[in-house]
Amino acid sequence: MRILVVNVNTTESMTESIGRQAAAAASPGTEIVPLTPLFGADSVEGNYESYLAAIAVMETVRSYSEPFDAVVQAGYGEHGREGLQELLEVPVVDITEAAASTAMFLGHKYSVVTTLDRAVPMIEDRLKLAGLDARCASVRASGLAVLELEEDPDRAVEAIVEQAEHAVTQDKAEVIVLGCGGMAGLDTEIRKRTGVPVVDGVAAAVTIAESLVRLGLSTSKVRTYAAPRPKIFKDWPPR
Amino acid sequence: MRILVVNVNTTESMTESIGRQAAAAASPGTEIVPLTPLFGADSVEGNYESYLAAIAVMETVRSYSEPFDAVVQAGYGEHGREGLQELLEVPVVDITEAAASTAMFLGHKYSVVTTLDRAVPMIEDRLKLAGLDARCASVRASGLAVLELEEDPDRAVEAIVEQAEHAVTQDKAEVIVLGCGGMAGLDTEIRKRTGVPVVDGVAAAVTIAESLVRLGLSTSKVRTYAAPRPKIFKDWPPR
Amino acid sequence: MRILVVNVNTTESMTESIGRQAAAAASPGTEIVPLTPLFGADSVEGNYESYLAAIAVMETVRSYSEPFDAVVQAGYGEHGREGLQELLEVPVVDITEAAASTAMFLGHKYSVVTTLDRAVPMIEDRLKLAGLDARCASVRASGLAVLELEEDPDRAVEAIVEQAEHAVTQDKAEVIVLGCGGMAGLDTEIRKRTGVPVVDGVAAAVTIAESLVRLGLSTSKVRTYAAPRPKIFKDWPPR
Amino acid sequence: MRILVVNVNTTESMTESIGRQAAAAASPGTEIVPLTPLFGADSVEGNYESYLAAIAVMETVRSYSEPFDAVVQAGYGEHGREGLQELLEVPVVDITEAAASTAMFLGHKYSVVTTLDRAVPMIEDRLKLAGLDARCASVRASGLAVLELEEDPDRAVEAIVEQAEHAVTQDKAEVIVLGCGGMAGLDTEIRKRTGVPVVDGVAAAVTIAESLVRLGLSTSKVRTYAAPRPKIFKDWPPR
Amino acid sequence: MRILVVNVNTTESMTESIGRQAAAAASPGTEIVPLTPLFGADSVEGNYESYLAAIAVMETVRSYSEPFDAVVQAGYGEHGREGLQELLEVPVVDITEAAASTAMFLGHKYSVVTTLDRAVPMIEDRLKLAGLDARCASVRASGLAVLELEEDPDRAVEAIVEQAEHAVTQDKAEVIVLGCGGMAGLDTEIRKRTGVPVVDGVAAAVTIAESLVRLGLSTSKVRTYAAPRPKIFKDWPPR
Amino acid sequence: MRILVVNVNTTESMTESIGRQAAAAASPGTEIVPLTPLFGADSVEGNYESYLAAIAVMETVRSYSEPFDAVVQAGYGEHGREGLQELLEVPVVDITEAAASTAMFLGHKYSVVTTLDRAVPMIEDRLKLAGLDARCASVRASGLAVLELEEDPDRAVEAIVEQAEHAVTQDKAEVIVLGCGGMAGLDTEIRKRTGVPVVDGVAAAVTIAESLVRLGLSTSKVRTYAAPRPKIFKDWPPR
Repeated sequence: MRILVVNVNTTESMTESIGRQAAAAASPGTEIVPLTPLFGADSVEGNYESYLAAIAVMETVRSYSEPFDAVVQAGYGEHGREGLQELLEVPVVDITEAAASTAMFLGHKYSVVTTLDRAVPMIEDRLKLAGLDARCASVRASGLAVLELEEDPDRAVEAIVEQAEHAVTQDKAEVIVLGCGGMAGLDTEIRKRTGVPVVDGVAAAVTIAESLVRLGLSTSKVRTYAAPRPKIFKDWPPR
Repeated sequence: MRILVVNVNTTESMTESIGRQAAAAASPGTEIVPLTPLFGADSVEGNYESYLAAIAVMETVRSYSEPFDAVVQAGYGEHGREGLQELLEVPVVDITEAAASTAMFLGHKYSVVTTLDRAVPMIEDRLKLAGLDARCASVRASGLAVLELEEDPDRAVEAIVEQAEHAVTQDKAEVIVLGCGGMAGLDTEIRKRTGVPVVDGVAAAVTIAESLVRLGLSTSKVRTYAAPRPKIFKDWPPR
Repeated sequence: MRILVVNVNTTESMTESIGRQAAAAASPGTEIVPLTPLFGADSVEGNYESYLAAIAVMETVRSYSEPFDAVVQAGYGEHGREGLQELLEVPVVDITEAAASTAMFLGHKYSVVTTLDRAVPMIEDRLKLAGLDARCASVRASGLAVLELEEDPDRAVEAIVEQAEHAVTQDKAEVIVLGCGGMAGLDTEIRKRTGVPVVDGVAAAVTIAESLVRLGLSTSKVRTYAAPRPKIFKDWPPR
Repeated sequence: MRILVVNVNTTESMTESIGRQAAAAASPGTEIVPLTPLFGADSVEGNYESYLAAIAVMETVRSYSEPFDAVVQAGYGEHGREGLQELLEVPVVDITEAAASTAMFLGHKYSVVTTLDRAVPMIEDRLKLAGLDARCASVRASGLAVLELEEDPDRAVEAIVEQAEHAVTQDKAEVIVLGCGGMAGLDTEIRKRTGVPVVDGVAAAVTIAESLVRLGLSTSKVRTYAAPRPKIFKDWPPR
Repeated sequence: MRILVVNVNTTESMTESIGRQAAAAASPGTEIVPLTPLFGADSVEGNYESYLAAIAVMETVRSYSEPFDAVVQAGYGEHGREGLQELLEVPVVDITEAAASTAMFLGHKYSVVTTLDRAVPMIEDRLKLAGLDARCASVRASGLAVLELEEDPDRAVEAIVEQAEHAVTQDKAEVIVLGCGGMAGLDTEIRKRTGVPVVDGVAAAVTIAESLVRLGLSTSKVRTYAAPRPKIFKDWPPR
Repeated sequence: MRILVVNVNTTESMTESIGRQAAAAASPGTEIVPLTPLFGADSVEGNYESYLAAIAVMETVRSYSEPFDAVVQAGYGEHGREGLQELLEVPVVDITEAAASTAMFLGHKYSVVTTLDRAVPMIEDRLKLAGLDARCASVRASGLAVLELEEDPDRAVEAIVEQAEHAVTQDKAEVIVLGCGGMAGLDTEIRKRTGVPVVDGVAAAVTIAESLVRLGLSTSKVRTYAAPRPKIFKDWPPR
């Protein structure tokens, strides 16, 4: 089974880190193919970059020439998953939803710890649309930008642990979700520090994608995610 | 005052029709500038095309070289408004939200009549995110594609009236919202036929944009819609 | 176009202040007619007075003998708008709803800053019924009574700014709504002090009323707001 | 114990019928005092009349000169209960809320059968504000006006039974609430006909009022329902 | 009228205390029969014990050989009420729901003060399922175990008062509900200390059960609470 | 890895069928151990039997003497999952939640098709508590009892397909969930007949349990699902 794991940022080192996290979660026999978007911002931290990433991820997946069995969109709180579901016959799993869905099997309420404050409303919106917000205790910002996570993992752990502890004691979360694809690999340390289960979206998404493939399940094509209708495109894709 | 009214489809005749509807709603002294996206699908009827339109609308507005006072995004149920709000200092009004917000001043519940069945969940999602769904009685599809509206306005009126009547009698709507930018101009006829107020999103959005400008109000920049952070872009914008 | 702007309090100086705010927001060619209720409390700060104001506003508008094009009910969080909608053919705009609706075009969440703590649940109830509460971050009390706002505007600004700042930092509001008709005129100063958009309900309502009139839209009469059925009234109206 | 049961309509025969229903539900030792509003419409079937009734009920209770232990407001879906709670130290029970609250002890979901279609949104709004709507399957109109109920009880029973049966089979209601004070006395017959529990709001409200008095419980005065603040009233009450 | 009041804990002294509270709330002529479950934990403080209590309460009531008119399940936030409703023809009242329902007649919002932190999510879940959570300001833990309440009532009062005060000032509760059957009898003291109405679930449930019996109302048998279908049971009940 | 898959009914043939479905979904190297409750009803079709099954499943798992890595509770819409989570250190997955959670990755809305009408409210309640109801279009009853599914699989398929088709066309479901453990094995046929993805809860739960184990994730023990406190049990467990 081959799963494409698509970064939303165009920073290659982040793609590699996401790929490693995905590979570690995958079953034997699953091939993880990490992809970097063909165009877009080095880090996605707002709606403009996220919308651009949405379309970049779609074009990147469409231009991938080998067969594949599922796609994981590895951006936390980002736009675009619905478009991928229209374009593809294989299952599409967004890490935001995968992490929330997984966390709900582990505790009564979960909290998300993400990067910057401005990402909070985007994540809240994604969870609301996905109908996975009823048991979300809070979405909290660590104050770190996406690229700072890579530069200084120790500081990242400290900042995330601080918010995770507030989430547990004040917001009554029982599970912590790491709210950024760039936090891949920090889950073990944070679990140790906080004493509660910590869910990494990339790992969660890979196991869900594998399960859907194994169960022979994929996106319903009867309405919302039917293949796009034939269109005449002006100046797209760009040459 | 100059208001950019941006179509999400790349069909020029639709841009013109939207422009006429906008101009008819505008106050004396307001200049309406209808814009067609620089790239994208001739009609937007699904998530892929909508995400592409989102980024196309943003790039189109950014490349507009004259000063302007507000932007109306003239696609019903489409993605992208949040990105425009980040990029611009002037008010941004989405016709989906403008129409819903206006309808709520006119009756206890409103319904939306749109084009194809596949647009229904997209519109429901947009209204939910906007927090304008609590008094939405239903979103109904007329079964007509976007471009069919232009080709045969009489048939369009019949199909819309039929759903509008179901909305009033079965779903208890008291106001009808026309759920497609391409329905611009049909409101008078449908109002006459159904006996309930009919809201056209383009017209509603223009008056709201004008009001915001006049009141000196624009998008809050303290969190969600702060200007994008500096980024390094790979291969974007396309040449 | 003539718009009646009806105070809910019987204090004439407040009617004048509301009238000035309305006039400042109105388009050229719009005549603002400020009205004081024929009976009722000097300031409305609870349900008893608010119910009395509801019926007083209705009787006051009914006894207005000149033609008019729209009515603005200028009491924040008060009862009665539905009754006016039944009695009149022209659009009715409540400032509570106008302000919330306007704020939602300006930021992801808004907060209301009002007068006394006891007004908070009334406002929350009005927003809930109007279906405009989903993006309300909080309703906060400044602790000032309605008539104190007029007596000491500087102290009013301080008290409102303090709560507005808590709303932005703690409740994550991005827009502030002034939750009292008596705060008319303080918006500019508070916007300057807090750095976020500040919406005054009277100004917002006037522009919405104008827009509805211009678009030829008015209250739907098919169900909830149909004209009252013929009744035999005992001892009413009072002589 | 003395309980005032206040009609919202000024039709005396309806007050008598409500009084009989209340007396039948009361415990030995409870004195029921049925009151007709001092002013207002012969039947309340819309917001204007309901707001007028709200203030009329308050003035009527205030002008009652004997001591009493509780008040039942016997109008289904009407305005005003919050004002009574402010004015009085004794418990106030609204029949809309009493019936819903009682129905929830009897089945998984309940439906309300009321008079005219235009009453439906008013009742839905009252239940929503009261936080008693989550288990309301539907509010259905029998199509009968308030005064028609008295004129032709047999026809009333038929019309109510028809809607009650739809509520049970289509809306999955397991309990029926009679949604009009004027339906007092029809519950036994309708229960027999439909086979499900039928709740009359007047009877339910009387038992709840009695229970509150017996338990020494009354309205909290710490915030929302604190006594009105001292006011200067213009031309009120009318002479 | 005879009402069974069933403790969920197997501690007899607690059954007695609950019985006294029930008797004090009952009308003249009502016989209160306090019952201790035939099996189960000395105190119920989690889901395992609560599920065991659910089935123990059902078996205990079934094995009661005298006729009775209603059942009160006297465990706050516990499982099992739906099963009792299936098994019995007489009304069943759960104290969690009785207290919430009663509190809603007394103030705009109520809070529950319970025992241990781990009980909080259970109570929140019960209120949500019952559709009585919309006006619940908070559920707060006093930190005391169930059996500690009996051992040291003075300390219990202090701990409850402390949380009740936070509920009123911070969470905007206007009424306090005692969230444990073992708090029976503390209501008067806590009311005195906090100045807000305090609702004891056992007392509230007894009056509601009495009222339902008096009104001739009982559980609807048309769907959810229909009598169990005939079954073959393996090794149950235990000998 | 060893996963216990516990039937809620005491009918052995159903346990075997569930076990086969589980084994078919399991990865190589996963051992499925199907268990029948030690006591309880031959089929669970209501709250009494479901509460009994809840405690029976817990006692059955506790008395299982070999080590195991996860538990699947294979009853759709049944009580008890929270108790298992308290008692165990390993992950617990309920098939109701597993199926809903899986369906949400496959379409915009899903519907559940279950057995008898009386199961519908139980399932709705479970989904609501789990916070997985926002995208549930409907829960529909096929009208077949649990044991009838086994007796006549062809008739079962017909009855389920009929409701599934209504769910897709009327309720706008895009995915069907089989709402009974006893429907295990019918998914392929129903998928073929309806053209939409069909989710079997047992299969979904097995893959989720495997994933949690592989990711090293298990139930949070910080609050709701902490191990039960030490208790003195009266007459339990039965000898």
